Formats: sequence, C-alpha cells, structure tokens
Amino acid sequence: MADWNELGKVARKWTYEAAEQIKRALANPFKVEAKSGPDDLVTEVDKNTEAFFYQKIKETYPDHSFLGEEGTAEKIHSTDGIVWIIDPIDGTMNFVQQKIKFAISIGIFEDGVGKVGLVYDVMADEMFYAVQGQGAYVNQLELVAGKERPLNESIVGLNARWLAETNHPHANPLMALVRDSRSVRSYGSAAIEMAYVAADRLDAYVSVNLSPWDYAGASVLLEEMGYCTSSFSGKALSLLEGGTVIAAKQHYKEKLYLLM
Amino acid sequence: MADWNELGKVARKWTYEAAEQIKRALANPFKVEAKSGPDDLVTEVDKNTEAFFYQKIKETYPDHSFLGEEGTAEKIHSTDGIVWIIDPIDGTMNFVQQKIKFAISIGIFEDGVGKVGLVYDVMADEMFYAVQGQGAYVNQLELVAGKERPLNESIVGLNARWLAETNHPHANPLMALVRDSRSVRSYGSAAIEMAYVAADRLDAYVSVNLSPWDYAGASVLLEEMGYCTSSFSGKALSLLEGGTVIAAKQHYKEKLYLLM
Repeated sequence: MADWNELGKVARKWTYEAAEQIKRALANPFKVEAKSGPDDLVTEVDKNTEAFFYQKIKETYPDHSFLGEEGTAEKIHSTDGIVWIIDPIDGTMNFVQQKIKFAISIGIFEDGVGKVGLVYDVMADEMFYAVQGQGAYVNQLELVAGKERPLNESIVGLNARWLAETNHPHANPLMALVRDSRSVRSYGSAAIEMAYVAADRLDAYVSVNLSPWDYAGASVLLEEMGYCTSSFSGKALSLLEGGTVIAAKQHYKEKLYLLM
Repeated sequence: MADWNELGKVARKWTYEAAEQIKRALANPFKVEAKSGPDDLVTEVDKNTEAFFYQKIKETYPDHSFLGEEGTAEKIHSTDGIVWIIDPIDGTMNFVQQKIKFAISIGIFEDGVGKVGLVYDVMADEMFYAVQGQGAYVNQLELVAGKERPLNESIVGLNARWLAETNHPHANPLMALVRDSRSVRSYGSAAIEMAYVAADRLDAYVSVNLSPWDYAGASVLLEEMGYCTSSFSGKALSLLEGGTVIAAKQHYKEKLYLLM
C-alpha cells in the first residue's frame, strides 16, 4: 500500500523546487503561444515545469501514471492504479501578464479516489494541501469548516467572462446566481479559486468548462473538508474528461443545482 | 511649502502601524454592520482605524483637512489647502469574510492636486505608493510603464456584479467591454484594483460607482505613471463627490469612452 503521507511530502518538495525554477524563469523573457484562442495561453515555462514533474515521477515511481495539461505523457484512458494529475501552471494568463496569482496543481489518485491534493500559489507562497483523512492545510495552518452562509451573504467565484458570453446554456442561471449572491470574485486561476473555497475565502466556485488538471488537486482538498465537488447536473467530476464544475460547501449544493 | 517626501514617509509609517492593529483585530471576533445594504459592510475595525489616522493627523498637522469613508470628521466642502482622503479598509467584505485582499488607501492633495498616494494591501504586505514627480513604487521596486496592449489582449478589472445588474445605464457597454477584452478580474477592492493598473497587473479598471476615498490614493499612483483616471464621460475625478471611474493606460482612454 502506498504511503500517502510520504507521497504528499514528496509532491510538496517537488512543487517547491518547480516553483523556484518558475520564479527564475519569470525574471527573463519567455516564449508565449496561444492555444485554442487569445485567452488560452501556454509558455515554455508551463511545458518545462510539466516535464520536470513527469521526469521525477517516472524516475521515482515508474508504475504511476501521469496526466498533465501540456500533454507531456501519452493520454491515459483509465484511472486504474496510481495517477498523478498535474497542471504545471494554472492561470497562465496571470503568469504571463500579472506575474502573480498562478498555481501549481497536483492531485494523486488511487483507482479514481483522491489521496493527495495540493494547490501552490507560487508568488503568495501559499501551499494548500490535503492527504485523505489527515485534514487540509494552508502552509502550517489546518483549515477548519467554514460558516454556512445564505446565498445573499456568500461570495461566489467564477470567470466573469461567462456573464458576457450569453450564447451558452448556463447564461441565465449564472446571471441569477450572481444577482442572488452577495458578491463575485474572479481571480483567473480555477485551482486557486477552488482552494479558496476549501479555505473559506469563497463560499462557492462555479465554472461552465474546466479540464481535469484544473480541478484534480483542489478536489482532494474540498473532499477532505467535506465540501461538494460535482458537475452542474450533480455528477461526480471525471478525471478523464472535463466539463461544468461546482465547488461549494454542502448546503449550497441543492441551491446551485436549482440554478443550473 | 510642504515636504511631500516627508509626508509620504509619515503616511507610510502610520499605515504600517494601523495595519498591525488591523491584523491583531482580525485574530478576534469583531462587530459587523450593514450600511446601505448587505454588500456594504462596516466594522468597528474600519471605524477605529479611521479614528487612528484622524487623531494622528490632527495632532501632527492641525491645519490639514480630513475626509474619510466612515465620517470621523465633518464633511468637507472644499479641496483648498492640504487634504488627506482616507479609506481605512477598502474591501471591507474581503476583510470580514476572506481576511485577505483589503487595503488602507491614502491620498494627500494640495488645492486638489495629488501629492502623495498609497494603497497598502495589508495581508500581502504590498505597499503601492507615489510622491508626485518622484516615481511610483511597490515596496522597494520602482514601477515602470506597462506594455500598451490591444483590448483583446488586455485584462480588465471590474465588479462583475454590475454585469448581472442590467438595470443601469452602463450595462450594455460594460458587457461589450468584457466581451472585447481578453479576460476579466474582480478582487473586491477598488483601491487594490486601481493600484494593479498602476503596476501593470491589470490593463484597465472600470467602476460605475465609487466614492472619493475609494480612488483618492490610487489616483495619485496612476497620475504619477502617466495613466488616465476619469469618469466614464472623460471628466476629472472629483475629490468631493463620487461617480463612474476609469483607470487605465492612456491608449485605452478613447476606446473606453466609446464603450460608455
């Protein structure tokens, strides 16, 4: 049986090493490319960081599988065994333009069950992490269950761009959610926003389209806090295919489904 | 003639002192009240912090005037002489619920002209400040003029709540702005968002309704960077009455007016 505490320590150690490389890279010019469109960016730093993790994992745990945003490894078709799901830089636009508010996200799963999750906000030096059954932490501080606020006293995280793109099936419910909540935040990194739900800085986070590497790390944190992660229709999040995402305290679950 | 460098040093010193008091207050329960509605909060910490600055200024500079969010001093009707405009905690909702991403904002004006501006993100320990003609800084680092990006490569800050509140005269132009920009951020503190424009972390920030204490400090930073601050209709921001606000690099000015 895998020692999840030990794997968690190793994942954090590699993450801090990768973060040092990323900070050094930030000090120099680097190549930026658009992927699917002008708001979907990738840099050589994303690719190098993913390659760093891939090499470490292959060397140290040759029987583990790997799924990363930048496609360093071959696409996996099953979540059997131990799988690392990594976003080397979540919030690449923030990385490129703001040079703050981007994260390394890692989820380690056994047969589809989240065992280790971490989201590291590199420039804020905030390490959100959890090992299943061992509590969730930000740096040395254990996270405690947040207050269950009514929606009109809640702060909801979402990509506000979706409020202007009204030609998707969730436009009206999202508008209603924003109107009914106390306030809205958009930080440009889904991993950080979901970690903020775990840390009670946001009451809920919703997205109409994310990929497994965006939510894999944070989903383990949220699970450990007893919070809800699901698609808009209430299905468990898939580790192989992306889609809509709700991350929220349990008591919002029913209300958020009604909105969708 | 006032020594603005010296006044800037004093303002920063008092700000760090006030921040220590705020951080101590955060460790204990404090009273929260709603002002105009459930998304407009005030705490005893806002009031105590404003009183702290008011006392310091009255003792040290008895001939200076004072305008603060919490109404510690009598309302001023003129910007003649030296006026301190202070928001003791900008982003009170963040302060109450997130315990991060709130700021102390101070602008010092002489006959309506910005001389000293600071925005201090307390928990991130980021001091954005400028003295007229002396450059703008974040902590020890001098800010340099940011890249002039086209709108479709720009990150725009705004309170995304306004996108769902469609019964105001700026609803359609704001929607168009969000669609035409690369991405949107909402942090819940106008002072921090305007300071982020000065620091090139956002390309523009717009609000349909702010008060002088929200923008006074950051407006001095933006002025020092040669950036634009104005109302949607292109008027100079008033220090006595609030309204719509654009904070942006110069080249956006014309485009943003067209949108409004």
